[in-house]
Amino acid sequence: MNPRVLLAFLTFSLAPVFVVAAEPPQVEQWGRFELNLTGPASGNPFLEVELNARFTQGNTTINVTGFYDGEGQYRVRFMPEKTGEWRYITRSNRPALDGKTGTLIVTPPGAQNHGPVRVAHTYHFAYADGTPYRQLGTTAYVWTHQGNALEEQTLRTLAAAPFNKIRFCVFPKNYDWNKNEPPTYPFVGTPPSSWDFTRFNPAYFNHLEKRIAQLSELGIEADIILFHPYDKGRWGFDRMDAASDDRYLRYVVARLAAYRNIWWSLANEYDFMKEKTESDWNRFGLIVQESDPYAHLRSIHNGTLIYNHNQTWVTHASIQNGSAVEEPGRAELYRDAYRKPVVYDEVKYEGDLPRRWGNLSAEEMVFRFWNGHIAGTYVGHGETYLSPADDIIWWAKGGSLRGESPARLAFLRQVMAEGPTEGINPIDKWQDPRFGGQPGEYYLLYFGKERPTAWRFELNKNKLSDGLRFKIEILDTWAMTVTPVPGTFVTKKKDDYIFEDAAGQSIPLPGKPYLALRISRLNP
Amino acid sequence: MNPRVLLAFLTFSLAPVFVVAAEPPQVEQWGRFELNLTGPASGNPFLEVELNARFTQGNTTINVTGFYDGEGQYRVRFMPEKTGEWRYITRSNRPALDGKTGTLIVTPPGAQNHGPVRVAHTYHFAYADGTPYRQLGTTAYVWTHQGNALEEQTLRTLAAAPFNKIRFCVFPKNYDWNKNEPPTYPFVGTPPSSWDFTRFNPAYFNHLEKRIAQLSELGIEADIILFHPYDKGRWGFDRMDAASDDRYLRYVVARLAAYRNIWWSLANEYDFMKEKTESDWNRFGLIVQESDPYAHLRSIHNGTLIYNHNQTWVTHASIQNGSAVEEPGRAELYRDAYRKPVVYDEVKYEGDLPRRWGNLSAEEMVFRFWNGHIAGTYVGHGETYLSPADDIIWWAKGGSLRGESPARLAFLRQVMAEGPTEGINPIDKWQDPRFGGQPGEYYLLYFGKERPTAWRFELNKNKLSDGLRFKIEILDTWAMTVTPVPGTFVTKKKDDYIFEDAAGQSIPLPGKPYLALRISRLNP
Repeated sequence: MNPRVLLAFLTFSLAPVFVVAAEPPQVEQWGRFELNLTGPASGNPFLEVELNARFTQGNTTINVTGFYDGEGQYRVRFMPEKTGEWRYITRSNRPALDGKTGTLIVTPPGAQNHGPVRVAHTYHFAYADGTPYRQLGTTAYVWTHQGNALEEQTLRTLAAAPFNKIRFCVFPKNYDWNKNEPPTYPFVGTPPSSWDFTRFNPAYFNHLEKRIAQLSELGIEADIILFHPYDKGRWGFDRMDAASDDRYLRYVVARLAAYRNIWWSLANEYDFMKEKTESDWNRFGLIVQESDPYAHLRSIHNGTLIYNHNQTWVTHASIQNGSAVEEPGRAELYRDAYRKPVVYDEVKYEGDLPRRWGNLSAEEMVFRFWNGHIAGTYVGHGETYLSPADDIIWWAKGGSLRGESPARLAFLRQVMAEGPTEGINPIDKWQDPRFGGQPGEYYLLYFGKERPTAWRFELNKNKLSDGLRFKIEILDTWAMTVTPVPGTFVTKKKDDYIFEDAAGQSIPLPGKPYLALRISRLNP
Repeated sequence: MNPRVLLAFLTFSLAPVFVVAAEPPQVEQWGRFELNLTGPASGNPFLEVELNARFTQGNTTINVTGFYDGEGQYRVRFMPEKTGEWRYITRSNRPALDGKTGTLIVTPPGAQNHGPVRVAHTYHFAYADGTPYRQLGTTAYVWTHQGNALEEQTLRTLAAAPFNKIRFCVFPKNYDWNKNEPPTYPFVGTPPSSWDFTRFNPAYFNHLEKRIAQLSELGIEADIILFHPYDKGRWGFDRMDAASDDRYLRYVVARLAAYRNIWWSLANEYDFMKEKTESDWNRFGLIVQESDPYAHLRSIHNGTLIYNHNQTWVTHASIQNGSAVEEPGRAELYRDAYRKPVVYDEVKYEGDLPRRWGNLSAEEMVFRFWNGHIAGTYVGHGETYLSPADDIIWWAKGGSLRGESPARLAFLRQVMAEGPTEGINPIDKWQDPRFGGQPGEYYLLYFGKERPTAWRFELNKNKLSDGLRFKIEILDTWAMTVTPVPGTFVTKKKDDYIFEDAAGQSIPLPGKPYLALRISRLNP
């Protein structure tokens, strides 16, 4: 047989194999593979049926817990973190769900898929593919409990807004300006407070997941708040017993962990939930840590008593403290205490609410973001303009943004995006906290509420030597302008701490508040 | 026999027993009992001889490790924490030291003896007898290495100064302005660097202990710095091997723990000791914790990287950060991070040193103390006036104080002493950090560098109700004056957050910096 005939024969004989066997399903790296199985619908499957799957590639095995989705449907969701072929086998205490095997092919991620966000460079974040993630969050606590019309409006608003993270709650909210019943509830039962905490409501979770996936499409991280105190017994989700709390956590993690844009926030204002103790919160943190195969980011957000973010399960500090971002010299202090990324998720709200936490000016909100950025930390936005006609306030329900800060935060986001890959750190943390950057390469000097008319070129000595060349741009963080300063600046040692410009140059400044200088090293 | 005869007979027959038996030794509660034994002097007793004693009273047993003091002398030092009779028995691997028993009688403490200092009310300190201890420390790193003349001058200076704590090092210091050899060394050997780390030098430790006891007589706590980086290999005490480090710690604790005024500072600028790792420091902390029967206060002091003071062995945060006490809004932040007392032991120095850490004005030093006090934290003093003739600078060698801050710190100490037993806490921590005190009872409002000409009576609502009566005093913290404001002030609710004076009173102020108001509740 000559080679061409052999090749033709092989081609012919192999072709039917490809035709007969089902193509293995394909999924992107950090995408979501879903294995759907049919099993028992009787009894209480949430309590009685165990299901998990082992996904294997070479030396890597990932155990993934499945969940019951109602009407005899069971699902196992898997977010593969490596490309190539994976095989799986299920294990269950029900024969219909046990021993199911299969293969999936994981392809490289799409252009907009950078994977989940991880901690990077101790104080910062990056997507799993290494792309820097500069957190610029907002909050709309119960936007997914408002019905489709308002929720879709919220998504349209987010699509045009600068935010790359949104914080929101699994449970509905009972609070001033938040008295409406939600369309669905996480548990089966009768509102307001007769629930079977052993039976989850698949319709509720399918809706929540749709919103999480839509956020992912928009490039927005979903910082899921698992517990909160704004229930006060109305529904009782704030005072379930320990077994129900733990079962709830495991179910939510089993359903949501495969969404790559998930962050876990154990609670909002955890210390205001008087039914829980510190050891409850630590147990919850450990449950989420051990249940989530992908190690999504984990934190817990305080009222007035900051959590001990040195606990090992905490990946970053999620802090409410508006005062801390009133100046970078405060904002930076928690970095040293925790040696983890610090996110000031709640710094009061731009708005006109008759509460002292709810009536910042837009200027003050933007100022707080810049202070946080300069300090090497991250800040979250919130908006509370009253809406007497319908009580729709962005802070809780979403809808539309009315404030003047988001446009300026878009400007900041652009500055962040153009900044160093390794993030912004304090340059000389206890001496002049107005400087953030990367020593020797990149400096942001933020003047805050000062109104400087000039600045003399002087930089801290760290990583400087004589003869380095820099350019300067003047940023008006409120007017959103970038004005290059003519000429270049060349370093020359001044004293034990400072380098100045060799020609002793100063630059004129317009005497306005909210100015910053961007000082960038020029290539030799 | 009639009863009188019987009594006479018994008296006669018992009397010799009292004459023959030695009176049991007496020692004050929190005093120091020393059991001295003679044993082997050959070989290396530091390595080879084990000695400890079990002190028992009722259900309480305290195991105390003894130590070798040279020339065949062994000692066990015990600080009894309860009055009454205690019995002891020794255990040793040498017969001469084993099985020695005895009794001691512990009497109530003398008037100046309040016991060791403990953590109280989470963020504060109190002596063991409950007397509040308001830390007002200073530092003279190597004052006990300077020879008797200078050391006695230092003690005379301290006797007249306001400080109730001093930080200093076991090891000598090799640094700018600190090039002199010490009179003695902790180890046997030949200077500069040929040491037998297995043999301690009793003469060195006897001298150190004399100084610690003299501080105790002056009512001054001795914050002993166990390691420091200012050696740089000159003597090599900064780079001993792990076994020598651990043996050294156990020996120092065995010798010093019975001094009631001891605090343990694991290190100064621990992060500048590149020979040690984080896990070394944690091990050292645990060794000190387990070796010290009396649980003296324990911390570790940073250079630029603050230690994780949430480690369980850390009793309080000992922090270097001058920037943090530039305003109370910064100073208070570490309280929340650690939920322990915060002591800013190093906030830069009053002086004229050509270093940016060594040339604070006296005004700035006093300002930093007040900021720390208002924030519910504690501050340490230091002084660095150059002395070209002899390089004797208080900061390191002691001697005399030349600065203007100590007098003002004495004034602050008086204000502290007159303050609430429970200590000062922020009144409304993230809203107006200028207020410290105890809500409803006592407020200190510190204006810092503001120059107010008036103040309208307005207090945060916490623990207030209508009709409470207050008096106000104006404190000039620099001029050291207390000026009562005529009249009384009566609370009346103003809004959701504030109570004002019912008559809307304001008070005039002299428009100077460094003013404070002391606002005290009057009895009904």
